[in-house]
Amino acid sequence: MSLNRVMNPDSVAVVGASRNETKRGYKAIKTLLDEGFEGSIYPVNPKEEFLLGLRCYKSVLDIEGPVDLVVITTPANTVPAIIEECAAKNVAGAVVVAGGFREAGESGTSLEQELVETARAGGVRIIGPNTSGMVSFKKHMDIIGFHQQGKGELALLSQSGNMALALFTEASVKSRKAFTYYIGIGNEADIRFHEYLDFLANDPDTRVIIIYVEGMRDGREFLQRANKTTRIKPIVLLKGGRSVAGTRSAGSHTGALAGMSEVARSAFKRAGIIVVENSDELFPAAETLASLPPMKGGGVAILADGGGHATIAADVLTDLRVPIATLSEKTRRALQEMLPGGAAVANPVDVAGGADGDPEVLADCVQLLLEDEGVGCLLVVGLFGGYGIRFAEELRFPEEDAAHRMGKLVRRLGKPLIVHSLYSPAKPHALELLRYYNVPVYDSVEIACRCVSVLAEYGLHLQTKPTRPEFTFHWEEAALPEGKKILAQAASEGRELLLEPEAKELLRLHGAPVTAERVATSPEEAAEIAAGFNGPVAMKIVSQDILHKSESRAIKLNVEGEQAVKQAYRRILKSALAYRADARISGVLVSPMASPGLEVIIGTKIDDQFGPVLMFGIGGIMVEILNDVSFRVLPVSKKATREMIDEIKSTTLLNGFRGQPARDKKAIGRLLLTVSEIVEAYPQIKEIDLNPVIVYHRGLGIVDARILLHPA
Amino acid sequence: MSLNRVMNPDSVAVVGASRNETKRGYKAIKTLLDEGFEGSIYPVNPKEEFLLGLRCYKSVLDIEGPVDLVVITTPANTVPAIIEECAAKNVAGAVVVAGGFREAGESGTSLEQELVETARAGGVRIIGPNTSGMVSFKKHMDIIGFHQQGKGELALLSQSGNMALALFTEASVKSRKAFTYYIGIGNEADIRFHEYLDFLANDPDTRVIIIYVEGMRDGREFLQRANKTTRIKPIVLLKGGRSVAGTRSAGSHTGALAGMSEVARSAFKRAGIIVVENSDELFPAAETLASLPPMKGGGVAILADGGGHATIAADVLTDLRVPIATLSEKTRRALQEMLPGGAAVANPVDVAGGADGDPEVLADCVQLLLEDEGVGCLLVVGLFGGYGIRFAEELRFPEEDAAHRMGKLVRRLGKPLIVHSLYSPAKPHALELLRYYNVPVYDSVEIACRCVSVLAEYGLHLQTKPTRPEFTFHWEEAALPEGKKILAQAASEGRELLLEPEAKELLRLHGAPVTAERVATSPEEAAEIAAGFNGPVAMKIVSQDILHKSESRAIKLNVEGEQAVKQAYRRILKSALAYRADARISGVLVSPMASPGLEVIIGTKIDDQFGPVLMFGIGGIMVEILNDVSFRVLPVSKKATREMIDEIKSTTLLNGFRGQPARDKKAIGRLLLTVSEIVEAYPQIKEIDLNPVIVYHRGLGIVDARILLHPA
Repeated sequence: MSLNRVMNPDSVAVVGASRNETKRGYKAIKTLLDEGFEGSIYPVNPKEEFLLGLRCYKSVLDIEGPVDLVVITTPANTVPAIIEECAAKNVAGAVVVAGGFREAGESGTSLEQELVETARAGGVRIIGPNTSGMVSFKKHMDIIGFHQQGKGELALLSQSGNMALALFTEASVKSRKAFTYYIGIGNEADIRFHEYLDFLANDPDTRVIIIYVEGMRDGREFLQRANKTTRIKPIVLLKGGRSVAGTRSAGSHTGALAGMSEVARSAFKRAGIIVVENSDELFPAAETLASLPPMKGGGVAILADGGGHATIAADVLTDLRVPIATLSEKTRRALQEMLPGGAAVANPVDVAGGADGDPEVLADCVQLLLEDEGVGCLLVVGLFGGYGIRFAEELRFPEEDAAHRMGKLVRRLGKPLIVHSLYSPAKPHALELLRYYNVPVYDSVEIACRCVSVLAEYGLHLQTKPTRPEFTFHWEEAALPEGKKILAQAASEGRELLLEPEAKELLRLHGAPVTAERVATSPEEAAEIAAGFNGPVAMKIVSQDILHKSESRAIKLNVEGEQAVKQAYRRILKSALAYRADARISGVLVSPMASPGLEVIIGTKIDDQFGPVLMFGIGGIMVEILNDVSFRVLPVSKKATREMIDEIKSTTLLNGFRGQPARDKKAIGRLLLTVSEIVEAYPQIKEIDLNPVIVYHRGLGIVDARILLHPA
Repeated sequence: MSLNRVMNPDSVAVVGASRNETKRGYKAIKTLLDEGFEGSIYPVNPKEEFLLGLRCYKSVLDIEGPVDLVVITTPANTVPAIIEECAAKNVAGAVVVAGGFREAGESGTSLEQELVETARAGGVRIIGPNTSGMVSFKKHMDIIGFHQQGKGELALLSQSGNMALALFTEASVKSRKAFTYYIGIGNEADIRFHEYLDFLANDPDTRVIIIYVEGMRDGREFLQRANKTTRIKPIVLLKGGRSVAGTRSAGSHTGALAGMSEVARSAFKRAGIIVVENSDELFPAAETLASLPPMKGGGVAILADGGGHATIAADVLTDLRVPIATLSEKTRRALQEMLPGGAAVANPVDVAGGADGDPEVLADCVQLLLEDEGVGCLLVVGLFGGYGIRFAEELRFPEEDAAHRMGKLVRRLGKPLIVHSLYSPAKPHALELLRYYNVPVYDSVEIACRCVSVLAEYGLHLQTKPTRPEFTFHWEEAALPEGKKILAQAASEGRELLLEPEAKELLRLHGAPVTAERVATSPEEAAEIAAGFNGPVAMKIVSQDILHKSESRAIKLNVEGEQAVKQAYRRILKSALAYRADARISGVLVSPMASPGLEVIIGTKIDDQFGPVLMFGIGGIMVEILNDVSFRVLPVSKKATREMIDEIKSTTLLNGFRGQPARDKKAIGRLLLTVSEIVEAYPQIKEIDLNPVIVYHRGLGIVDARILLHPA
């Protein structure tokens, strides 16, 4: 169902309308009137007859005409009853302002549940609760007072009203850009992030979507929609709540679980979202994407009128991994002819005072640089806009002409230009002109550079073909019925853990290379199994009550010979019972010793926001100390598994380090796909942990496998 | 010699004085007049009689009175002759504005050399060349036009005029702070960074020193002075020129070698300098340090009037490793009583609308938080200053009262308070009041957080006892004469490499644990030596022409038995000659095989700016792939060697990882000290490379040692 009636209502009722100027029930009506809402406004308050010149209604049901949206400003406990009235009135949606729901603990959580059930039963969509509200600038439907001028191009989804206020203030003070919609997501009780996203993706006026998020309730659905949306228009996102204190803060104000933030960050990026790390970058990144085409290749050129800024810009752009353009011989010669002797004409270009007396020189340089084929984007850093302030008042006029020329060059050539000016706070007219031509101007070198990198990143995203997760299930038909039996068996015994042989059997069913091994239930049987393998064996306890086999010491490696095997069997049993006297023992697993190779770890976990997540790393210090692992939210594509293998820092170890052979990356990739297929195929699975998996030059072997199930 | 006559001149001559308004020779005189320089101004130009109402002189020598400072605005090639005149006139110093010296290549470098020699011979100190100039605000001695108001507290040393302009603009637009001195360092031909630093350290009006540096010519001297200065007043520094493109840019504009930037960064920090990574943070960090006392312990409390800003501030402060305060039960109860139900009273504190109608509530919270013993610093984030804009116009007045109260609390309690306000660009009076009380206000959450971390970092520095480099030279008396002989021998043979036995002998002389080993010059001698050791031996070629022994394959490990040793000897010789037919062979080194242990790498290198640098890391992937090494500029203290060992990421491996024994960190520390002592004792040494050093539970063994010498 489209959210259009909710987002662009023709009629709005305000429940809890008030004549007290400090109350939301007053302000909502006041701002609707002030901003010129193009529709009917119905105050609802049983105690009033008129408010702000409007007739006041006893209840939503008393209103004669149809009502699209209801703004509820009364306390939390009154909300479910009001929603029932909304349902009876065929209201499309309600903005629930009050806090005191999920973010307030247990009783709030059940109140929120009641709210959602009532709303769903009655077909009323809920924005919030615990939200600052929403604004449809297109309809002048503003219940908050985010006054702005100009045609909107940006939409904002935010879990913080303060952040919204900050962005609106920044937009009006420092740019010529305006918004189409603002939605305060609040607790996301009913309408989720991805539904708003769909709505904004389809809105023709919204060119860029800005998101401030602390936690999402359905991250997986969001990622899938984001994947599609970013092909059409950019999404710029800031994630709050990385730290312990930040998570506590997020929890107390939106009831959000801030979630594994490394997973979130990489998942968002992979969906083509521009993730900024810094709240200062959020608006500039969106402004730039709404103003300029993304970079289509080539590198960035830097044009400066002083060395320091050139140096800093080059450093920052390098840190941001933006390629620095190599200028053509022709461009360099032309610059050399135009500029004084001290000028630098290799990128970064420093005019070294060559424009101090004539800012048109900068426009000449801009033209040369933008026309250079190797230049995909140009960054101007320094004083532009301030020549009339710094050097001589009459330079204002050639400076303004230079701005016109630069702006028209950008239009003609379709290449992005971003300008840093330390005179931006002085608001010289030349900079206003640049903004008129959609050339963004910043007073921070770092932010200007970040905006260049955003254009590079989004350009690259658009050039990358979309990949699909591949779930081919080569083994499904054969495997699934058998696999289900294994899980059913564990469930019937009330277990939340597969025994190691069960876990390996499940993997084997799905085509994973598990070493041949069998469970012995007596010393003699163990010896017999061992005799069937060549060479020494590994022996491990099989017990649903012993999760950590090493800790229990119920494990023996490198056992060889009949007597040794029998003795090992007896010792393992003894250790297991010493570790836990009431442990239920299924036997002892006997397997051939794996030949030495490189140990890797593959696993899956459930993320609160994104569901199953796949993890890969190299065993030992790399994972345990350096935390050098890669993550992907499932499902994954073949390409994603290749990237997972390549993006860990210690990936060099797989390529053959210090005379070691190269390791079978293809086999790792296959196993990563298999593991994700298994998690997808059996929703009962909570966690898989293959540790270690030994990787050889050809092939690999899963030495230990642990599979945990969700509680029934 | 003090720079006082240069920095605070009573008389200034401008050579190259001009009536052309776009020329430096005009502007320098104009701004001296405009700013009301408290001394005599002498234009010098043989073609003019009067300029700007002042009498013009044919040359410096024609001026009747004494001249302290000469500003030279004429081209590079004219400068040495003018300096000669300055010397004859007993001028204290000259500002050389022209470029075309070292930064311009070979001919410029020799011109600069000529300039320095002339100046030193004549006792004239040089600022620059290639500088934007200098300003002594105390004397209104301004030859640039950095107009400002208020009493100066900040001094600026900068290798970029643009950066200076940016900082002055920022100071005047966004703060109430002003400067005492500005010095454009330029090419640092004569007066070096550390001399300016000394001058500013002793200036009573300068409270904070700001430095923008791309490269230093005498970094070691600078570090030593900085070490002392930061005990008296803070230094805030930004280093430009980290990247390839940035280094190129720095080279072209100051002729500076941008140097190993990781070394620079950590060396600066260790000297107690506040190193900022971001040009946006440079001024705010300095402003904060000039305004507030450093943190004396405790954690930071965050006070917000909205959840989003609280969350972001908590994240950023955590990233910056600032401890987050735990509030006392008493504070939390008091906050709870004061604030509405939805408020968060654990740090971060979110008033959750509780101040919307009365900003005095914020001042009440500030008081509670600053009075909490666990709170060492308070950060207020959100809307403060904008209540009169956002909520109701008349709130301006209680908001101003709240500002007065907050300001006086800071004065009374001596604890720092920093305020973030998204309304800062609107310049409300309440924020001006905060600044009057020396409470800094920023419109960026990230920058406000960074300023908190700066106070924490500087506070910690002041609490840390200064450590002295310890060069005890236990072995010096005995070692030095013998050591010098080894080096003399190499020098006499024209070698820039010590043979391995020589290098190890030098180490042994200084008390380093080198395994017993001897050089054999025949297969028989090799067998004899090997027989003297228990167990297998390692055998390596000894040749001044073979630097990379492994590559030459002239090395055999684990050799045991007379025949095997003899054969190995012959094979090593064969491999060595196959690798390089004309290699001069001194023999084959025979040493007992080192028992297995953890391999570490210890080395020294010469940094362009800081001289000898000591390096430590764990061998193999840690150093080679993950680049996990620690650095220190020499000389080092015992404490510094401990820190070097602890600060690598893989240090856990030394503590005993996965059942491995803990390694002898004390022995590593001793060897680090020994190596630095050796480098200090023999200035001929260019590079030491001990790789690997095998570390055991007790003790260590140096398996391979390479020592390179400077070319004679």
